[in-house]
Amino acid sequence: MRIAQVSPLYESCPPQLYGGTERVVSYLTEELVHQGHEVTLFASGDSGTAATLRAACGEALRLNGNCKDTLPYHLVMMNQVARSADAFDIIHFHSDFMHFPTFAPLWGKTLTTAHGRLDLPDLPPLFREFPMMPLVSISNAQRAPLSWANWHGTVYHGLPLSLYALGQGQGRYLAFIGRISPEKGLERAIEIARRAGMPLRIAAKVDNADLQYYKAKIKRLLKDPGIEFIGEIGDREKGPFLADAAALLFPINWPEPFGLVMIEAMANGTPVVGFRRGSVAEIIDDGITGYVVDNTDAAIAVLPRALKLDRRAVRRRFEKRFSAERMVRDYVALYHGALQRRGADALVLAHTTPQPERDAA
Amino acid sequence: MRIAQVSPLYESCPPQLYGGTERVVSYLTEELVHQGHEVTLFASGDSGTAATLRAACGEALRLNGNCKDTLPYHLVMMNQVARSADAFDIIHFHSDFMHFPTFAPLWGKTLTTAHGRLDLPDLPPLFREFPMMPLVSISNAQRAPLSWANWHGTVYHGLPLSLYALGQGQGRYLAFIGRISPEKGLERAIEIARRAGMPLRIAAKVDNADLQYYKAKIKRLLKDPGIEFIGEIGDREKGPFLADAAALLFPINWPEPFGLVMIEAMANGTPVVGFRRGSVAEIIDDGITGYVVDNTDAAIAVLPRALKLDRRAVRRRFEKRFSAERMVRDYVALYHGALQRRGADALVLAHTTPQPERDAA
Repeated sequence: MRIAQVSPLYESCPPQLYGGTERVVSYLTEELVHQGHEVTLFASGDSGTAATLRAACGEALRLNGNCKDTLPYHLVMMNQVARSADAFDIIHFHSDFMHFPTFAPLWGKTLTTAHGRLDLPDLPPLFREFPMMPLVSISNAQRAPLSWANWHGTVYHGLPLSLYALGQGQGRYLAFIGRISPEKGLERAIEIARRAGMPLRIAAKVDNADLQYYKAKIKRLLKDPGIEFIGEIGDREKGPFLADAAALLFPINWPEPFGLVMIEAMANGTPVVGFRRGSVAEIIDDGITGYVVDNTDAAIAVLPRALKLDRRAVRRRFEKRFSAERMVRDYVALYHGALQRRGADALVLAHTTPQPERDAA
Repeated sequence: MRIAQVSPLYESCPPQLYGGTERVVSYLTEELVHQGHEVTLFASGDSGTAATLRAACGEALRLNGNCKDTLPYHLVMMNQVARSADAFDIIHFHSDFMHFPTFAPLWGKTLTTAHGRLDLPDLPPLFREFPMMPLVSISNAQRAPLSWANWHGTVYHGLPLSLYALGQGQGRYLAFIGRISPEKGLERAIEIARRAGMPLRIAAKVDNADLQYYKAKIKRLLKDPGIEFIGEIGDREKGPFLADAAALLFPINWPEPFGLVMIEAMANGTPVVGFRRGSVAEIIDDGITGYVVDNTDAAIAVLPRALKLDRRAVRRRFEKRFSAERMVRDYVALYHGALQRRGADALVLAHTTPQPERDAA
């Protein structure tokens, strides 16, 4: 199949540091190539891929100090995709929704994965205007605010199986990974660890937007001797960090659309204790890969059982549900669905449209 | 002519308070209707117009506390315009450049007025990708950073002649209107007024982005007895404020693309002393509607002559160069140019493309 993958340009594919969407686009693209598809990746020029790379900008935009406005580059990319649309059987967008006006007439060969939260007041008018665009959610929960939109499927993210390996949790600490922001719930993670009498290691970045929150609510909590803040970490450090953790705490306070770190923990055999918001109950298999809880007390109560879960079973369940190969299988099925609909449309048209008589001289 | 005007959605047309672009779109639209054209205005639903209004949102976005993201509404508008493109002879965009990918195939019936500064590092790649889109500048100076782009003309902004009337400057103060920000040069205005021994009245708003600058550099200067800060003013108060001023100071420190307040002052017969940046030397007729200077010393030196300029001559020159009627005349000429090019293209195509023989049975 001739497939275009259209990534956001904020991070390279894969990203150098943070950047969930671009990471998933990268895993998807490389696995599609591996399976023999003809793939073109629209992404920043510093991306690394086995697909054909088409770059609307040299460097990823977030780390580029010269970039003041990210929209122009995305508009350039939209045009690059539009001008070469004939070359693809399917065009798969991961770059929010700015392609909608340009690609509405071509909706039949597009698929759009929504990577962000959808409970924003400005989105319903957008999806009402573009009811034809086929959408994919990354969890069923993500759809809730726009349940009436044109969903064609939920495809959970997946990771290459070789990215992480089963670890033994021998560091005996609890782990927290994420931004330090109210929605990620670090305060709760600290409370859970203290009351459970376990050390907590925090791998996190502080965005400028969250600096106030960090100073007011978090900074003093980090002085506790059981709490260790190790800053932002890259993919290479993330493996050992998660493999050595006894469990991952995911005490979120917002409708997380997916939560990549949960399956990263599982890939290391590390169970997850997550709060019942957004995707969490879909990602964690309760009693197998972790536990889903409703509050801090419940998290503390369930922790001894979480620590006793069989790490090999966690890894096995990860391999079954969250491999890049499974993600690609799901997406390719959706691509085939789009092709078949187009084939059916063409058949109907062939039988209803007057045909020119080609052989008549 | 069947004309679409596409406004940004940040302010209504016309705006309730600040908002230069939407104000100009409103003057242009109403004058086109007045001249008998069939005009559709794409703008926020709280706009007031004699044209047919098509609204992608109920309220203007900047004053709407529920709006977190303005892009979705602009995407809805782009689709509304695209779906009805056949109904127009010309589609005139004032909403930056986000229509480029969607309207590139229809470039021949579009015109895009650039309302903002163009010296941003992210714009050259955009204009290189869309060399076909016909552009209009609002001053010749505005083009400088993108002089190689597809400019079809410069059309200076214009105001309805009845909006303001000749005033006598009887308040004997110097006036400053604008945002309080480093680029607007209020510090210089204060210095000029103090050293010239004249009172300064300041009608200005402070954006959140400029609060730091206001506190650090401006606040203490406002305590001088000769300085009066009257806050943000609407169109109704602007007339008397400018009519009673002896002169307007426009000591900018950035490449102003047009500077609407200069012609608003002239409409009241008030001379302008402006700094030679961006459009200023094109808008001020030196020695007739004001003086163009290079620094604060020169502004102080020229002030006595500026105060002696004939206010009726200032108003007359304004009427000649900056009326809405003249602005519409200029734009209609560009619209006709586009139509003629399309006509020529059609003629060429008619003589080169094999035509079906319609009369053959």
